[in-house]
Amino acid sequence: MRKYRLMAPGPTPVPEKVLLRMADTLIHHRTPQFQAVLKDVNKKLKKVFKTENPVFIFASSGTGAMETSVINLLSKGDTALVISGGKFGERFGEICEAYGVRTVNYDVVWGEAASADVVRDLLKKNPEIKAVFGTLCETSTGVVNDIEKIAKVVAETPAVFVVDAISGLLADELKTDVWGVDVAIGGSQKGFMLPPGLSFLTLSAKARKLIESSDLPKYYFDLKAALKSHAKDDTPWTPAVSLIMGLDTILDMILEKGLDNALSYHARLAAATRAGVENMGLELFAKAPSNAVTAVKVPEGIDGAAFVKKMRDEQKITVAGGQAELKGKIFRLAHLGYTDEFDTISALSAASIVLKQLGCDVEFGKGAAKAEEMFM
Amino acid sequence: MRKYRLMAPGPTPVPEKVLLRMADTLIHHRTPQFQAVLKDVNKKLKKVFKTENPVFIFASSGTGAMETSVINLLSKGDTALVISGGKFGERFGEICEAYGVRTVNYDVVWGEAASADVVRDLLKKNPEIKAVFGTLCETSTGVVNDIEKIAKVVAETPAVFVVDAISGLLADELKTDVWGVDVAIGGSQKGFMLPPGLSFLTLSAKARKLIESSDLPKYYFDLKAALKSHAKDDTPWTPAVSLIMGLDTILDMILEKGLDNALSYHARLAAATRAGVENMGLELFAKAPSNAVTAVKVPEGIDGAAFVKKMRDEQKITVAGGQAELKGKIFRLAHLGYTDEFDTISALSAASIVLKQLGCDVEFGKGAAKAEEMFM
Repeated sequence: MRKYRLMAPGPTPVPEKVLLRMADTLIHHRTPQFQAVLKDVNKKLKKVFKTENPVFIFASSGTGAMETSVINLLSKGDTALVISGGKFGERFGEICEAYGVRTVNYDVVWGEAASADVVRDLLKKNPEIKAVFGTLCETSTGVVNDIEKIAKVVAETPAVFVVDAISGLLADELKTDVWGVDVAIGGSQKGFMLPPGLSFLTLSAKARKLIESSDLPKYYFDLKAALKSHAKDDTPWTPAVSLIMGLDTILDMILEKGLDNALSYHARLAAATRAGVENMGLELFAKAPSNAVTAVKVPEGIDGAAFVKKMRDEQKITVAGGQAELKGKIFRLAHLGYTDEFDTISALSAASIVLKQLGCDVEFGKGAAKAEEMFM
Repeated sequence: MRKYRLMAPGPTPVPEKVLLRMADTLIHHRTPQFQAVLKDVNKKLKKVFKTENPVFIFASSGTGAMETSVINLLSKGDTALVISGGKFGERFGEICEAYGVRTVNYDVVWGEAASADVVRDLLKKNPEIKAVFGTLCETSTGVVNDIEKIAKVVAETPAVFVVDAISGLLADELKTDVWGVDVAIGGSQKGFMLPPGLSFLTLSAKARKLIESSDLPKYYFDLKAALKSHAKDDTPWTPAVSLIMGLDTILDMILEKGLDNALSYHARLAAATRAGVENMGLELFAKAPSNAVTAVKVPEGIDGAAFVKKMRDEQKITVAGGQAELKGKIFRLAHLGYTDEFDTISALSAASIVLKQLGCDVEFGKGAAKAEEMFM
């Protein structure tokens, strides 16, 4: 009877109402009925991304939209600045490399946020930089970057600023247009509380100009084709109809409560988690913690992989472990999706039990106590 | 109360059992639970594609898998033979062009099947051809090509044979390994009766060798990454979890009845449709008709677009019209997905009503009569 609790930073639990919408009779995508849904979804996506520019929807994981940004904005031999402080920042560098785009790399210490001053210096030293790639929430470390500050720096140059907001969006603030972010990227299986399979991408006027000159090859992820279709509330290829139906429902649910509410909700869960784990004597990993996911250092002498495994197999709570250089060294508790205060307390309680089982000196109730206090 | 009947060649109706499976609690993709599902799905996909080679699953529409075949097998400046007899055959040519792959084009008259002899001649005249791109069922014309014959011709050369089986698979026979098809491509929203959002691709040993030398840029659709993950029953990027759950259920349903049954079922619906429309005095468009979709010529003087619109808006039956040069000239009735004998008769009856309304001299009951006779 133990319930399954999905508390990894994506995929996240999906509200029943959304699951049922997706289970409704499938309709054809080239019909007035679907077009009406897509038109409405396109409008609502603009609100969530806080942009007046089009938001494109792809049938792909978030990585597909990341690749889309590189191959539509740049040309072979162009230079890009890649700000990377974890596994997902690195991905932009890998994509650039695959397409023959030269990169200037700003490698931030994992766990720390990127500095706008360093970005300014690098842009000055490398005036040939055409695009800057950054991350809102670096999922692998739980760090939120100061996108507003970095965007201001990039906006003073001819370069465009591309932000991977896949895990951060709806949990960490992102004012795409006000901050001057040229391309913001999202994914369905994070703050949108949908199953994986959709990715999103915004496009500023500044970024749109680059599309014209880009000579990198593309077809499925061609933004010229996407732009043409988007103008007619259509898609160039068959869209993932059922997921877009779910998107329609979840966008209504999110916008009804308001975007500020979504942000404060995530902030509330994240703050209680951070306070809870610290009260348990544990240490946070991220110097600038995101409200999407909290990375916690595995205590000295404790097997981090065993912790994640016992949480999953015995407590039925899926949390994420560390990736790459952080393997076994951290665990990550997400606040994304259809997750509430008592799921958060459950995760803290389960963590207490499992850490104790693994021989860690944790006092029972410390995590829950702090969370209760904060939630009251 | 009029029910919605989706009879376009994809997306297709989805069985309720599958809809409910996809509406179940979402699980994380990096867990033993999901890995077990994926392992099983991978095995079952091999059966459906009749191959011993791996079948890759992408979170994308079928076009993504078509692009995958081009960019992983070929290099810039390579030559490919594109056999095209409709809108989807043409797509391979467009993808090749986008990536700087030279094409030899075999343009088949729309409505006719490709000739293996012509393919043989073209391969002889152009020994530099590294890959041949063909189509099982050309969705835009309703033609099924003789893939077995063409595969035999290609197999005698060093070239690999890539077949777009997106709309044909499960309706028209495809013996991937026995016939020597190197890469077969599928999509979720056709014979698989799933919502759109997944595509599939098989890979022979001969095709696998080409991957090593291919220099076209790629990332999301990189088969080297896919191969590495597939060996561990994993995926390089976040998979479309809910659709894969649905795939698990539908594959069980399909394999339980047997693949021969799936083929004969589609053949039965297609034969009754063909006989029905001919008995109504209408003419078939395809010289070699597929069992996935039946293309019917719109009678002289009748507005084809109005027919499709009235079928949809008044009869609540979504059929497809003609695309590109066939716009307004044909309509297409599909036999794919969760569609049965009485849906087929319903479509014939609705077509009689609508054609009569549009001023066509159709005798009521002629379509249904022939279908009843054949179904008995």
